[in-house]
Amino acid sequence: MADMQELVTVALDAMGGDNAPGEIVRGAVDALNGNAGVRVILVGRQEEIEKVLAGLGNYPKDRLSIRHASEVIEMGEPPVNALRRKKDSSIVVGMKMVRAGECDAFITAGSSGAALAGGQLLVKRIKGIERPPFAPILPSAKGPVLLVDCGANMDPRPSHLVQFAQMGSLYMKNMCGIESPRVAIVNVGTEEEKGNALVKETYPLLQACEGINFIGNIEGREIPAGGADVVVTDAFTGNAILKTLEGTASVLIHGIKDSIMQSTLTKIGGLLVKPALKDLLRKFDATEYGGAPMLGLTGLVVKCHGNSTAKEIRKSIEQCILFKEKRINEQLAEAMAPEPAE
Amino acid sequence: MADMQELVTVALDAMGGDNAPGEIVRGAVDALNGNAGVRVILVGRQEEIEKVLAGLGNYPKDRLSIRHASEVIEMGEPPVNALRRKKDSSIVVGMKMVRAGECDAFITAGSSGAALAGGQLLVKRIKGIERPPFAPILPSAKGPVLLVDCGANMDPRPSHLVQFAQMGSLYMKNMCGIESPRVAIVNVGTEEEKGNALVKETYPLLQACEGINFIGNIEGREIPAGGADVVVTDAFTGNAILKTLEGTASVLIHGIKDSIMQSTLTKIGGLLVKPALKDLLRKFDATEYGGAPMLGLTGLVVKCHGNSTAKEIRKSIEQCILFKEKRINEQLAEAMAPEPAE
Repeated sequence: MADMQELVTVALDAMGGDNAPGEIVRGAVDALNGNAGVRVILVGRQEEIEKVLAGLGNYPKDRLSIRHASEVIEMGEPPVNALRRKKDSSIVVGMKMVRAGECDAFITAGSSGAALAGGQLLVKRIKGIERPPFAPILPSAKGPVLLVDCGANMDPRPSHLVQFAQMGSLYMKNMCGIESPRVAIVNVGTEEEKGNALVKETYPLLQACEGINFIGNIEGREIPAGGADVVVTDAFTGNAILKTLEGTASVLIHGIKDSIMQSTLTKIGGLLVKPALKDLLRKFDATEYGGAPMLGLTGLVVKCHGNSTAKEIRKSIEQCILFKEKRINEQLAEAMAPEPAE
Repeated sequence: MADMQELVTVALDAMGGDNAPGEIVRGAVDALNGNAGVRVILVGRQEEIEKVLAGLGNYPKDRLSIRHASEVIEMGEPPVNALRRKKDSSIVVGMKMVRAGECDAFITAGSSGAALAGGQLLVKRIKGIERPPFAPILPSAKGPVLLVDCGANMDPRPSHLVQFAQMGSLYMKNMCGIESPRVAIVNVGTEEEKGNALVKETYPLLQACEGINFIGNIEGREIPAGGADVVVTDAFTGNAILKTLEGTASVLIHGIKDSIMQSTLTKIGGLLVKPALKDLLRKFDATEYGGAPMLGLTGLVVKCHGNSTAKEIRKSIEQCILFKEKRINEQLAEAMAPEPAE
């Protein structure tokens, strides 16, 4: 039996997302079977969770437990109200477990708004961090790219973007092993003098920021091409970029698959091309990289896509293991600590 | 011989873009050969233009002329300075021809900044229009989608976005024959209460705006899926969306082509799949829809991609013909006229 002291403990919202609880529970079991160093606590309605578990094969029972939570926050509910009203919802219970140190991370595929508000209101920020951003991995031709922020801070200040750059660098260095991650800010051109008011104010601050490899502006076109490792922007623009990229990739990939299914000849052609296409399709598979971590909280909160399947849940659990092993939060706390008063 | 009175006259920046003057001049000749109702004036260095023309085949010489302009505004030059300093540049000369009514439209694949500033400073606005936006067509799974604004107004006011919605509706109704174009505003979710400060202020104004079919918020994901006909946003976000969509499509389409070229087997497979793929690839071909018109100026200004080839130039000229035939500017002037004082 594994030493419980050394295990990474992940709480998982079993009720969140379009495919809950089935795919969520399946993802947890897959992650447990594939990773000896993790313990999962499924948060949600015990009876429903047990029903799914009963239909699954073997799994390490000593590393899987259920924390009953009787309520569910629905996608359309106003988040702050929902958090106040549904104290026994899976999201509120899971967030409080993070805050209390009962687990290292909480993963949900449920309401983005509730995940965001819950992170801000129920889980404490690391000292020195002004605004925790959502930082998902984007697919690109050259591999993973971190986008900060993609949904948390709609009208941020320049100092917030500078912190996004610092946190994003530290994350990509440790999680993806990139020695000196290239940091860029989203702009409408590559020339220094371009942009809206926010970018014009932020640019010189990023130039002056020590400890990051700031390479200047990046246009939307260069993001899927892999022109930077960390892409910094406000949450509104980031959200538009993330969803446009995922939407375009999805439309094209589905279009390719539909084309291949059109006739016997195209099906044969598809079989011949498929092995060569596989690598490209995998690179642009949004489920490949897990969910979007909210950086800068005392524990990790990860938001998965609403339509997550078992695979994205498993990848997100593995992301939490690496996050803990690499001691990202300890490093963030050290790097972002406020200057001591003289 | 065609009646000169009825021809649409298009001035074309022969010096702008990565492939000038060769591809630009070729695009003009292709457009002339394919469309009897247009006259093209090539603006730029006469000698260089004549050299390209000498290498081309037959074309209707009575409908092609050259307006000599000795200077060229380079891509990196600060636009306002460049417009002031280079009075004999192709962009300044072309813009002044629009203002003077010597032509109906001016097309350039040169500096975006100079096209933008030139439109604002050298060509007059239609009375009642506060801020002319750039409005390119985006490809989508369901056909063309108009994105307003994508580069002109970085920090717009809510009233500007309302005008973008009105102008965009009129444009799509006439140019694409959509009876009641669906207008949406870019947001981070579909719920009414979401968004940044600008969207929250603009949303109720769009709801109250008569004469448009406002369908609410649209997320980035739904844009390539064709979830609206007119997508309204600030220029900063619009630019990020346009370029992310084009960049993602480009990376994937190149990736598919590379995969097909990998071996003899994949090449055979590619031949079998290609006819079925053709329609999809054409839909997401950025050159298919011409350039981005700047709406609300007394004459039409169209900005093409910097890497435009003859095909995009020809499509843009055809776009100018339709714009004139449909009397878009006359309709805009009528629809957007300021309320008369009592």
